[in-house]
Amino acid sequence: MESSFLQSVYYENGILNILDQTKIPEITEFLEITKIEDAWEAIKQLKVRGAPAIGIAAAYGLLLGIKDAPENSFDEFYSVFKKQADYLATSRPTAVNLFWALKRMDDCANNEKDLPVARIKEALENEAHLIRTEDEEVCRSIGEHALTLLHDGMGILTHCNAGGIATARYGTALAPLYLAQENGWDIKVYADETRPLLQGARLTAWELMQAGIDVTLITDSMAAMVMQKGWVQAVIVGCDRVAANGDVANKIGTYGVALLAKAHDIPFFVAAPTSTIDLETKTGADIPIEEREASEITEGFGKRTAPEGVKVFNPAFDVTPHELVSAIITEKGILKGNYQEELPKLFKK
Amino acid sequence: MESSFLQSVYYENGILNILDQTKIPEITEFLEITKIEDAWEAIKQLKVRGAPAIGIAAAYGLLLGIKDAPENSFDEFYSVFKKQADYLATSRPTAVNLFWALKRMDDCANNEKDLPVARIKEALENEAHLIRTEDEEVCRSIGEHALTLLHDGMGILTHCNAGGIATARYGTALAPLYLAQENGWDIKVYADETRPLLQGARLTAWELMQAGIDVTLITDSMAAMVMQKGWVQAVIVGCDRVAANGDVANKIGTYGVALLAKAHDIPFFVAAPTSTIDLETKTGADIPIEEREASEITEGFGKRTAPEGVKVFNPAFDVTPHELVSAIITEKGILKGNYQEELPKLFKK
Repeated sequence: MESSFLQSVYYENGILNILDQTKIPEITEFLEITKIEDAWEAIKQLKVRGAPAIGIAAAYGLLLGIKDAPENSFDEFYSVFKKQADYLATSRPTAVNLFWALKRMDDCANNEKDLPVARIKEALENEAHLIRTEDEEVCRSIGEHALTLLHDGMGILTHCNAGGIATARYGTALAPLYLAQENGWDIKVYADETRPLLQGARLTAWELMQAGIDVTLITDSMAAMVMQKGWVQAVIVGCDRVAANGDVANKIGTYGVALLAKAHDIPFFVAAPTSTIDLETKTGADIPIEEREASEITEGFGKRTAPEGVKVFNPAFDVTPHELVSAIITEKGILKGNYQEELPKLFKK
Repeated sequence: MESSFLQSVYYENGILNILDQTKIPEITEFLEITKIEDAWEAIKQLKVRGAPAIGIAAAYGLLLGIKDAPENSFDEFYSVFKKQADYLATSRPTAVNLFWALKRMDDCANNEKDLPVARIKEALENEAHLIRTEDEEVCRSIGEHALTLLHDGMGILTHCNAGGIATARYGTALAPLYLAQENGWDIKVYADETRPLLQGARLTAWELMQAGIDVTLITDSMAAMVMQKGWVQAVIVGCDRVAANGDVANKIGTYGVALLAKAHDIPFFVAAPTSTIDLETKTGADIPIEEREASEITEGFGKRTAPEGVKVFNPAFDVTPHELVSAIITEKGILKGNYQEELPKLFKK
């Protein structure tokens, strides 16, 4: 396979390969998993992270659990299948994509129930690959659309990690960067470290370095100066949710970056698979913002760096108003201008 | 003495008291120093930090070194004085205020050379106190002027630590906050943690908490959201240097905060003792910006948090253009508008 370093989860010759994301950036190690119990552990212990990547790992993990299931009758097979799927579902009970992927595998088994069990197993393997390749296609398609907004020689700033290792491949915001590299473009990426959890430093800088893309790590507070120096011609970020009016919830700090981009006349792009667009949410004000533990800020590095008992405000996300978003890039195309009118059209096609 | 917690360096009954800033925020401990050698150690090991505080510690430290100097003749006395002053100067050879304070003590000794040595020693003790009280007056005066720009019930955001523990008392940017408290005002302070070295988390949050001022710690990336929520009605920061046109060099991240303040129509104030105003520097472009070690960003907390060998940009300061500065607050008054014309007037008075 080509450039496996971009893929955090893949399945080959009956082996589920999972990049151990808990060891990044210090150690790059792929787990070679052959038993469903080890897949369960890998999901449980966050060795695989990112909603799409977790779904893919679950689908492949399930294959390991049904490899030796009896092939005499569908019922006998399905009772093992169901037991293994239920078991895998307990690995991370809050991960929506885990259940989504297991449900898709279950539907596949039931749809093919009239086939011989050996053929059902083949169908399930195909389905698992499909879950992966569909996600890869979504990411690649976002990357291709985004690439039309960029050009060779550009400096690009990103925040947090909307990267390849959280998805089947390419990521969302980082997808155009990998495609730019495939095109032989010379780009320079600036990665905000992204306090408090440092996803930019730990993950974005790491995966771009692995791919040989020119990346410079900065603290979040340096983004303004990097823009002032004229080093950045575009900002691209991922998102957690897009509201019906185009307001974007994403990792804390994104809104500030959008304001800095505007102040420097730099376009601010949001990469958003249609699965993140929620027309039921009218505006950003309707998106609940999770507040997290103070300790992420006061002792986030295994060492206390702020006074005991200090009051802390630690929102996980912020909302960037649609006026600051130059374009929303989906796998179905690029939206600009009136998001309120444009977003519903994506779902009518 | 009143509210000693605001003073990081003071001298009482022949004892030099120095707040050990290397132990903050975990431990609040004053060193009680009676020997010049221990003053030397305290300066060397950065137990006292901040240009004004270092100068004050040096002046008092010198007193300890000449306490037992012979009193028979000026020449005998001065030879000990000189030896001790030269010794103290080796504690931190790059600290300009250290030399400035020792020079002031030397001038004082020479000016009073015709007095009996016991009286010269008294004059030197007065001079050391004067160095401290003059700095305290500068800080208090900045605070009083700044207070006219603020009001009861306000939310105020600050970046880095332009605080009391770096000066004789009050600090510069933090001075109006202490005075607001003396006035019984109800203010809420938001302290940016200030990556990479976390002066906001370690020092600003600590000293405001010590004083009982309501302070909330945020990461630098949260400032925009705190402003978006309407929690902040003024930003006030210190500075390292003000150029003749009013451009301001200050801790990295200040420029971004100024842009965010502008985007939210929040005034952005700079507290600047006249000693930081440099009319010889025409604009911010002429201020050299120190770049520091990558390790401050990649392993700033005793733990590696970014890939080995990653490229890093780590400027210590940035420059905020004068257009973004709503007012420059000096000990001699408040400047607004045309800084190019207003700044020289400060030095003509």
